[in-house]
Amino acid sequence: LRTMSSKLSGANRIKGTEKNIWVEFGKLAVENKALNLGQGFPDFKPPQHVIDEMMAAVASDNHLMHQYTRSSGHPRLVSALSRLYSPLIGQQLDPNKNVTVSVGAYGVLFCAVQGLINPGDEVVIIEPFFDCYEPMVKVAGGIAHYCPLRPTKTEGVTSSKDWILDPKELESKFNQNTKALIVNNPNNPLGKVFSRDELLMMADLCKKYDTICLSDEVYEWMVYDDNKHIKIASLPGMFERTVTMGSAGKTLSATGWKLGWGIGPEHLIAPMQVLHQNCTYNCPTPVQEAVAGALEFEIDQMDQPDKCYFFSLAKELQPKRDKLAKICQEVGLSPVVPEGGYFMMVSTGNLKTDLPDDGTDDPRDFKFVRWMTTKLKLAAIPPSAFYHQEHKHLGENYVRFCFIKKDETIEAAGDILKKWFGSVKK
Amino acid sequence: LRTMSSKLSGANRIKGTEKNIWVEFGKLAVENKALNLGQGFPDFKPPQHVIDEMMAAVASDNHLMHQYTRSSGHPRLVSALSRLYSPLIGQQLDPNKNVTVSVGAYGVLFCAVQGLINPGDEVVIIEPFFDCYEPMVKVAGGIAHYCPLRPTKTEGVTSSKDWILDPKELESKFNQNTKALIVNNPNNPLGKVFSRDELLMMADLCKKYDTICLSDEVYEWMVYDDNKHIKIASLPGMFERTVTMGSAGKTLSATGWKLGWGIGPEHLIAPMQVLHQNCTYNCPTPVQEAVAGALEFEIDQMDQPDKCYFFSLAKELQPKRDKLAKICQEVGLSPVVPEGGYFMMVSTGNLKTDLPDDGTDDPRDFKFVRWMTTKLKLAAIPPSAFYHQEHKHLGENYVRFCFIKKDETIEAAGDILKKWFGSVKK
Repeated sequence: LRTMSSKLSGANRIKGTEKNIWVEFGKLAVENKALNLGQGFPDFKPPQHVIDEMMAAVASDNHLMHQYTRSSGHPRLVSALSRLYSPLIGQQLDPNKNVTVSVGAYGVLFCAVQGLINPGDEVVIIEPFFDCYEPMVKVAGGIAHYCPLRPTKTEGVTSSKDWILDPKELESKFNQNTKALIVNNPNNPLGKVFSRDELLMMADLCKKYDTICLSDEVYEWMVYDDNKHIKIASLPGMFERTVTMGSAGKTLSATGWKLGWGIGPEHLIAPMQVLHQNCTYNCPTPVQEAVAGALEFEIDQMDQPDKCYFFSLAKELQPKRDKLAKICQEVGLSPVVPEGGYFMMVSTGNLKTDLPDDGTDDPRDFKFVRWMTTKLKLAAIPPSAFYHQEHKHLGENYVRFCFIKKDETIEAAGDILKKWFGSVKK
Repeated sequence: LRTMSSKLSGANRIKGTEKNIWVEFGKLAVENKALNLGQGFPDFKPPQHVIDEMMAAVASDNHLMHQYTRSSGHPRLVSALSRLYSPLIGQQLDPNKNVTVSVGAYGVLFCAVQGLINPGDEVVIIEPFFDCYEPMVKVAGGIAHYCPLRPTKTEGVTSSKDWILDPKELESKFNQNTKALIVNNPNNPLGKVFSRDELLMMADLCKKYDTICLSDEVYEWMVYDDNKHIKIASLPGMFERTVTMGSAGKTLSATGWKLGWGIGPEHLIAPMQVLHQNCTYNCPTPVQEAVAGALEFEIDQMDQPDKCYFFSLAKELQPKRDKLAKICQEVGLSPVVPEGGYFMMVSTGNLKTDLPDDGTDDPRDFKFVRWMTTKLKLAAIPPSAFYHQEHKHLGENYVRFCFIKKDETIEAAGDILKKWFGSVKK
């Protein structure tokens, strides 16, 4: 029976999804003790009241804080989420039917893709995209079509606003078999905050082709200058076809808490709840209790923006964005200044640095980031990972820096960049 | 385009998996404020040192306790797990390659089934089975074959030891296409602890048909009397084909922490890690840090069984088991006294109680438990949920009670049962 030994191996659905930039570049950053502007998490703690909520849940005399809770979300949490999102989306949400909770927005996205997409269904993904969309759709057997945001300016300091969709190109990706559009707004890694007109254009396509919209809005509160984040679910006719995804980790600077949610109509949320109940069943109770308490606190502060973390975090982040953009300019790297999110794409294309052969066929930015992490001890993320194969060239002359970091971290990164690139010929 | 509106709906893979006993009976128990011997969780807190570990992680000055950690498991946790399981399995485990962590053993099982089973692969499941095995295999497109443990005695007080597999019947479920055997040891709901001979028989079949063994051992420490839990992975030739699954929630009486692990050879663990990284990416950091600390503490106490929760919990549970069995006998219900786990199957077949028509075609035990929960305000779980359709009759004359409850809870359940069944004709 020797010939049967291939049975001791993985399923076909995971083939081609083995590589993961977070695994590779996270490990590389740790191994090199590099200053980490890579993966998107703060190098500071969540607000004290958020930590206090978790302490209270864990210290509670109520043993139920340590035992299983409701599959689709802890009752106090789904109530808080309904209260938060009903006015933002413009729909009176039912906490049990219009909300589902999973292991981070990542887990919610998985529930959406697995719960809604059949093998052979087509999916339109806007590029650059958060990298997990591609393997998730692949694992579900979906067929993805990619439409890139394209830069209208490439010289000097530009804005994420300069990256736009061609409406004809986008429509060319849709057909009768299109089951879903996946969009990330504000966009990671670009930081683009889609305008109302852009969202209306996407909404029209979703309605014309009767397509679900999976709207990943984990950076919903991190919007700068005069930009406004508009929820596509709030546009006419869109609530019934949209799952809006959010994240406690991103909203409360606690990425390690791994709690996210999906908001939408019952006909889309129920299948996600079913998938979730067969996949992880429920999420940690003390984390959900703490997030519920923290959100209730913030909701109560929303009319005092200085006291509400939803708004105050963006105010803290904007000068960090500007500091990083200034450093990049000073060393001759051209930043794409983001309208939202907490990442910045920075052009490295005009650097004549010879990158060492790392023995791979990976795009230039992978080699660049590996070199920068190992040699300069500064970690970042290669943006071509956020593109499908055919469009990776659009990302390979950039790096993605994360700026939800202490000022001294950003300044130390500046020192590294100035020391090296200040002396390199351009 | 009206005819396209079927696109705003769930994927086919979830069809037939919508019903979930934990959702239905959990909700029913809460709505009826019933005394809850249903879902398997303690009505007391985890040990104080376990709670203290979580408090310390959350209160830590280290911001990393609140941010993302390694996808396949927090480094300190996978180290502790290797240390714990290397001697138990008889293999020197590599923390990074032989261990993977997910959202409860439930999530680990999902990673195993999705990561290892192809559509069309056949899977043998021993009945009664923890109910999620069936929808998980279905969602992965696997074809399940079921082999029941059959009772050799049915009159009076019996033991889970009296329920046995017919080796010929079990082998008849295997063929060249069998990819995996799924076994739960100690078994939920029966409490059977498989003997060495029974495990050797299963191991021989796995080797003969070159089959993976998914061994769900979440109740590994809860073994009573002289029974010994033997890990099938420790039998000759089995490590290379076994994924052993364990649970922090069950081991540390903290089911709401939702953390589990899979232990096995790299060729089986790596696909699970890949699936996990595309599904939830990682698990909450403070929970993993706390479980790591708690396990390190228990490992250090293993030579002093009275001080080690792995052993002391079983010592606490055994008198609870005996108390519940005695109560059942007193009211004329025949318990199947479990060798392990923290559930008891109790025969209700000799009760002549007319159950009200609840408008469903569900098996008798579903009607019985609904009636008991709503009318007697005592919640349990219907064991036919742990059988495939063709064998549900084997479970429908039982209820499953959970006895990891305070003594007063079990006594209060006894009062309810005595009040009702003491007066019913048999």
